[in-house]
Amino acid sequence: MIRWFDDLTLGMRFRSRTQRITREDIKQFAAQFDPQPFHLDEAAAEHSPLQGLAASGWHTAAVAMRLAVEIRPFGPHPLFGLGVDELRWLAPVRPDDTIYIEGEVVELTPSRTKPQGVVRIKWTAYNQHGEPVYTFTPIGIVPRRPE
Amino acid sequence: MIRWFDDLTLGMRFRSRTQRITREDIKQFAAQFDPQPFHLDEAAAEHSPLQGLAASGWHTAAVAMRLAVEIRPFGPHPLFGLGVDELRWLAPVRPDDTIYIEGEVVELTPSRTKPQGVVRIKWTAYNQHGEPVYTFTPIGIVPRRPE
Repeated sequence: MIRWFDDLTLGMRFRSRTQRITREDIKQFAAQFDPQPFHLDEAAAEHSPLQGLAASGWHTAAVAMRLAVEIRPFGPHPLFGLGVDELRWLAPVRPDDTIYIEGEVVELTPSRTKPQGVVRIKWTAYNQHGEPVYTFTPIGIVPRRPE
Repeated sequence: MIRWFDDLTLGMRFRSRTQRITREDIKQFAAQFDPQPFHLDEAAAEHSPLQGLAASGWHTAAVAMRLAVEIRPFGPHPLFGLGVDELRWLAPVRPDDTIYIEGEVVELTPSRTKPQGVVRIKWTAYNQHGEPVYTFTPIGIVPRRPE
């Protein structure tokens, strides 16, 4: 069971449940945060670079965060960090796709000055065909076990 | 006026309108995408690393995207890209903060094989005190002017 930075190991892996993203979800997120035609309107999307309606990349990012939070990779500690590296959108997320994420611990660096460490988990989101659609590597901060 | 990749120049700058983020906005986004106590509950947030209720970093990212879309830095072409580099959260976004973004073109690389180019704009979001709260550098793709 993971309770502290010290319980994490390089190569440790995580997997989330699946989440369906509906046409309505896509349009609702886009209307609020990314109002571009290929996220809002089927006809306009046909002639766009995405060749059909697709979720905003930021919508996919938000759903991936939701799935990561539920995994609780840091046990009782929050998913809380400084930022994200290597955020890439790999393929469109279409209406009614179901996605899940897998993660692997790729860096563990104890702080020299504070009772905590930096944890990088490389997360990849896959659709129902097993195709990777999105990847991101957040820079998390996790407390060390008190001595 | 910007219509093509060829109209962009290094150092070109952009600035958005301001957007207020309310307590209700923060809780609503968090309930859907980042259900951690310090984004949902004032009392729990007091004792968290954020020392008070604050927006999910992904909420700030989504609002920044909204503001960037409205700027239309690529003229008639969409904000569409491969991913994002150097995404960092610099300070908490609190209830009723108003944020705006500024951007600067930091890279222009014409494709050798396609009639398009890669454009990197470094965007920074500031709050009403002028403090930077968030920065991200998306990797955009913009068509070249037809010959």
